[in-house]
Amino acid sequence: MTVPVPAALDPLNTAVLTITCPDRGGIVAAVSQFLHNHGANILHSDQHSTDPAGGTFFMRMEFHLAGLDLARDQFERAFATVVAAPFGMEWRVSYTTQPKRMALLVSRYDHCFLDLLWRKRRGELNIEIPLIISNHDDLRRDAEMFGIPFHVVPVTKDTKAEAEAEQVRLMHEAGADFAVLARYMQILSGDFLRSFGRPVINIHHSFLPAFVGANPYRAAFNRGVKLIGATSHYVTEELDAGPIIAQDVIPVTHRETPDSLMRIGRDVERQVLARAVKAHVEDRVLVYGNKTVVF
Amino acid sequence: MTVPVPAALDPLNTAVLTITCPDRGGIVAAVSQFLHNHGANILHSDQHSTDPAGGTFFMRMEFHLAGLDLARDQFERAFATVVAAPFGMEWRVSYTTQPKRMALLVSRYDHCFLDLLWRKRRGELNIEIPLIISNHDDLRRDAEMFGIPFHVVPVTKDTKAEAEAEQVRLMHEAGADFAVLARYMQILSGDFLRSFGRPVINIHHSFLPAFVGANPYRAAFNRGVKLIGATSHYVTEELDAGPIIAQDVIPVTHRETPDSLMRIGRDVERQVLARAVKAHVEDRVLVYGNKTVVF
Amino acid sequence: MTVPVPAALDPLNTAVLTITCPDRGGIVAAVSQFLHNHGANILHSDQHSTDPAGGTFFMRMEFHLAGLDLARDQFERAFATVVAAPFGMEWRVSYTTQPKRMALLVSRYDHCFLDLLWRKRRGELNIEIPLIISNHDDLRRDAEMFGIPFHVVPVTKDTKAEAEAEQVRLMHEAGADFAVLARYMQILSGDFLRSFGRPVINIHHSFLPAFVGANPYRAAFNRGVKLIGATSHYVTEELDAGPIIAQDVIPVTHRETPDSLMRIGRDVERQVLARAVKAHVEDRVLVYGNKTVVF
Amino acid sequence: MTVPVPAALDPLNTAVLTITCPDRGGIVAAVSQFLHNHGANILHSDQHSTDPAGGTFFMRMEFHLAGLDLARDQFERAFATVVAAPFGMEWRVSYTTQPKRMALLVSRYDHCFLDLLWRKRRGELNIEIPLIISNHDDLRRDAEMFGIPFHVVPVTKDTKAEAEAEQVRLMHEAGADFAVLARYMQILSGDFLRSFGRPVINIHHSFLPAFVGANPYRAAFNRGVKLIGATSHYVTEELDAGPIIAQDVIPVTHRETPDSLMRIGRDVERQVLARAVKAHVEDRVLVYGNKTVVF
Repeated sequence: MTVPVPAALDPLNTAVLTITCPDRGGIVAAVSQFLHNHGANILHSDQHSTDPAGGTFFMRMEFHLAGLDLARDQFERAFATVVAAPFGMEWRVSYTTQPKRMALLVSRYDHCFLDLLWRKRRGELNIEIPLIISNHDDLRRDAEMFGIPFHVVPVTKDTKAEAEAEQVRLMHEAGADFAVLARYMQILSGDFLRSFGRPVINIHHSFLPAFVGANPYRAAFNRGVKLIGATSHYVTEELDAGPIIAQDVIPVTHRETPDSLMRIGRDVERQVLARAVKAHVEDRVLVYGNKTVVF
Repeated sequence: MTVPVPAALDPLNTAVLTITCPDRGGIVAAVSQFLHNHGANILHSDQHSTDPAGGTFFMRMEFHLAGLDLARDQFERAFATVVAAPFGMEWRVSYTTQPKRMALLVSRYDHCFLDLLWRKRRGELNIEIPLIISNHDDLRRDAEMFGIPFHVVPVTKDTKAEAEAEQVRLMHEAGADFAVLARYMQILSGDFLRSFGRPVINIHHSFLPAFVGANPYRAAFNRGVKLIGATSHYVTEELDAGPIIAQDVIPVTHRETPDSLMRIGRDVERQVLARAVKAHVEDRVLVYGNKTVVF
Repeated sequence: MTVPVPAALDPLNTAVLTITCPDRGGIVAAVSQFLHNHGANILHSDQHSTDPAGGTFFMRMEFHLAGLDLARDQFERAFATVVAAPFGMEWRVSYTTQPKRMALLVSRYDHCFLDLLWRKRRGELNIEIPLIISNHDDLRRDAEMFGIPFHVVPVTKDTKAEAEAEQVRLMHEAGADFAVLARYMQILSGDFLRSFGRPVINIHHSFLPAFVGANPYRAAFNRGVKLIGATSHYVTEELDAGPIIAQDVIPVTHRETPDSLMRIGRDVERQVLARAVKAHVEDRVLVYGNKTVVF
Repeated sequence: MTVPVPAALDPLNTAVLTITCPDRGGIVAAVSQFLHNHGANILHSDQHSTDPAGGTFFMRMEFHLAGLDLARDQFERAFATVVAAPFGMEWRVSYTTQPKRMALLVSRYDHCFLDLLWRKRRGELNIEIPLIISNHDDLRRDAEMFGIPFHVVPVTKDTKAEAEAEQVRLMHEAGADFAVLARYMQILSGDFLRSFGRPVINIHHSFLPAFVGANPYRAAFNRGVKLIGATSHYVTEELDAGPIIAQDVIPVTHRETPDSLMRIGRDVERQVLARAVKAHVEDRVLVYGNKTVVF
C-alpha cells in the first residue's frame, strides 16, 4: 500500500541540523547557502527568535544527504569553521541512519510503557531501546515479548544512591542517548542527572504547573477541576519544574472519582509522552532557560 | 425554518426542580411519583451521588407545567410537605417564564461582555439584563446599542467601600438575581459578596488552579506552557478559589508572546464564560463545599 | 492505592435496566417506584425522549442488587408484568457479574486490537474475550501473550461464504454476545450479520459520512481536509452506514501524506473504538432507526 | 500593559513574501541571500514541498523593512529579475502598512458578521472593511454602529444576474481585495467569481465533504453524527468544493435537535471563519489545485 520511496530521497538518508545562537541578520542565508553549496537539499526549515532585536535565534533544518559532496565528518568540520564559528552557534547534526538509543525506566503502570514499545514496533519512532530498567519485576514479561533486556534495580530510601549509580552504569553501558520515565515512580536526584549527563524525559499526570508532586489526580478531584491533563517535560533538579515539551487535557465531570480520573488520565498520559518522545527523537525540541522551542 | 412548538409543550411553560439532600433509597421514586400525580410531565432528569452509601444526593428535573393540577404556590407548598421535608431536602423550583435577572460588571475588555449581550439578543440565554456596571466609560456606546442602562461607578483604593456599596445598591434596585464579572478588573470584597447575597460568576484567564491572581498570561509565558486556558467560577472571598463551573484550554506554541497569548485567550474566555452563565441560568449548577455538580 | 469498596456497594453487584417505549407520563415514576419497592437502590439514571408529545422514550437505570428482595428471574418476571407490559416497553436487564463476551476480528493492523486487549487486562472493560478471529496469522503471538484462542480463517473471493459460516460457527460456539471489527479488512455480508444475530461494532477510519468505503486517508488527502477522523458504528448491510456510536477527529496540515495521515489516524481510531466498545459493554447505547442514544 | 515596540521592529513596517515554484535545490539560499543583501531581516520563514523530487515548492517569508536599502518598487523589480525569474516563481509581496480591503457579504445571521467586525475593532485583523453588502436590511443598524457603508442588494431568481453585477461593481468601486461570505445565503455564479476576479472566502456549516449543500444541520441530525463542524474555503464554481482553509468540529449528543445543532454550530462557524480570514489576511494561505498550504 505504501508507495516506494525513490532512492535519492530515502528517509533513512536525511539529517537534521539544529542551531541556537544570538539573533542577527544573515543566519538563514549563511546556513542555506552552505547546505546548497555542498549538495544538501533542504526538506524542512523552521526558525524562531525570542526577539528579532537582539534575542536568541533557533533553527532546525532537515535535508537530504544523497547529493552531499563531503563525508559526514568533513561536512561537520566545514560547517563549524565556515558558518557556526562566525555566528557563535551552538549546533548539532543528527542522522536518521543513526537512531537515538532510548533507556526506558518504569515502575508498575504499563500504559505509557506499552504505548512506547508498540510505537517503536510499528516504526513510528526512529529509536533503539537497548534496555528497560524497573524498580519492580511486574513488567518483565512484556519487556521480553519485545525482546528488550529488562533490569530490575530495587530502590529503597537507604539504597537510593547506589541504585541510581547502578542505573546510570547500565544506561551508559547500553549507550543510551536519553532516558524516558514512563511513569517511573521515583524522584531522580541531581547526582543521577549529572552523572547520566543526557536528557531525561518525564510524564507528569497533571496539567503543570497545577498539581505539582504526588497524587495529582486526588488534588484535581479535591479542587473540582473540569479538565485533567498530562505534561511531558525534561527532568531537572527541581521537581516537576523542568522545560515543558508537550501537554494535553481531557474534560471530566463531577461524576469522576480519584480512581476514575486516574483511568481517564492514562489515555492522555500515554498520548502526551509519545508526542514528546517523538519530538525529541526527531530533534524538534530546543531548550533555552526553562522553556522549549518545539518545531 | 423553526418548526412551531405545540402549545402543550411550549418551552416557556416548563420548570426546573433542583434538590440536594442526604442520599438514601426512594428519592427518585418519591419525586417522580409526586410530579406524575400532579400532572407534571418529566422532560429531563439528572442525578448524582457523592457516595451511594451515605453521601450527598443531587437531582435536577425539568418538567412541563401544562398539565399541572395546582397553582404554582400550592404545588410548591405540597412538595415541601409531602416530599422535601421527609427527605431533608434543600430544593428550589425555577420557571422558564421568570427569566433570571443578570447584572453585568465590566471594565474595558469587550470580548466577554459583547459575547454575552449577543447571546442574549440571539435568544441563547433566557435572561433579563437590567443593568451594566463599569468602572470606566469605554463600553457605554455598546451598552446603549443593546438598550441596557449603563452605570459608571469609578473605583479607587480610597473609595472602594463606597463604590461597592453603590454597586450593590444598584443591583438590588434592579432586582438582579446574580452578577457576572465579564473581565471586571477589580477584586470584590467579602462585604460586597455578603451584602449582594446572590451568586457572582467570574471568568479567570487561566486554567485554575494554575496561575492564580494577576497577569496569568505573563505567568503562562514565563513557565512555557503549551496550553492556555480559562476558568469560570463562583466568586468567594478567597481569590480565584471558588467553585469551578467550566474550564477550557487552547494549544499554544513557543511563537506566542504575552500579548498574543492574551489575544488567543480571549476566544477561550468568552466561550467558557458563556457556557458557565448558560449552565447557571438553566439551573444546571449545584454547589457543594468548594465544588460543583454541573448537570 | 484503591480505597476498598464496601460490600453492599460492590460494583460487581449492580445491574443496568434499559428501556425503549412510546413516551407518555408516569414512566419514570413507575420504574423508580418498582425498583424502590423491591430494594434496588438507583445509582444512575438517564432518560431521553425524541419528542415529549408522542415520541419514543429511552431510559437507562443502574442500580444496586444488594437489597433486592427477589431472585433475578422473579425480579425480571415481576417487572415484565407490573411495569413493562402496561407501558409497551422493550427492555433488558444486564448484570455486571455476567460480563459480555466479545469476539474480536482483526486482520494485520495491530493498534485497535492491542488497545482493546490492554484495556481488558487493565480492567477498563468488563468483558470476556473468548476468541480472536483473523484472516491472517500475523497477530497470533500477541493473542497468545494475552492468553486468548486465535483462529485463522482465510477469506478469498471464492471461499467468502464458507469462511463467514465458519466465523459465525466459531463465535456461536464461544458464546459471543457481540463482535468487534478491530480494523478487520473484509466487508461482512448480510448473511453473516443475520446468522450471527448479535451486534457487530466496526471502526471506520474517517469522519463518516465523509469518505465512505476504501482508502479514506487517501481520499482525505486528495480533498485537502484539515481534520481527519474515525467513526465507530454498528454494522448493517449498507457499507459504513450503520448507527454511529462514537466519533472523533484530529487536526492535520498540508504537511501530511496519505501515509502519515494513516499513522496519525491510528491514535484516533483506537480511542474512538475503545470508547464505543465501553459504551456498548456498559449498556449505554440504545439504537433506534439508524441512530443511537448514548447515555 | 503592552511593552512599547522599538521603532526598527515596528510590526507595521514588515512585509510578507510568498512564493510558489517547481522544487529544486537552492531556493531557500537564493531568497534568503537576496533579502540579507538588501537589508531585510527575516522574522519568520516557512516552506513546504509536495515532493522534494520534482514537486511544487511553497515558501512564506516575513521580514522587516527597516534596513531595506531599496525603495519598494525597486526591491520588487530586483527580486523579479535576480531571484524569481531564474527559478520560475509565482510570487507576491504584501506590506503590513497596506492592509487588505475586505468586502463583507451577509444575509440575516449575525454571528459570523459581528465576530469579524469585533475582531477588526479590537485590532486582531489587519484589514479595512470598506463596505458591507446584504440581500436584506436586517443588519443595517449593526453595520452603522461600526461606521461601515451598508448596501442592500436584493436578489431574486429573475434579478440574480443584475444583482451580482451590482455587487461586483460596488466591491470594485470600494477597492475590495477579497470578499468574505459571512453566512451569505445565496450561491454565487461563475460570472460573479470571474468578474470580481479576487478571492472569495465562504463559511460552510458542516465538516466538508460531509453534508454539501443546503440544510447541513438537518442532514447531520438525520445521520446521527456525534460531531458537527464548520469549514471555511475559497469559493469556486462547484458548490462547497473549493480549497479548504480551516475546519473545526464540536461534539454533540442525541439530545440535540436540528435547531439546537444550529445554535451550537454558530460558535464553531464564527471561530473557523475568523481563523480562515486571519490566515488569508496574513498571507499564510497558498492555493494549489484544489488544496491549500496554510503556513
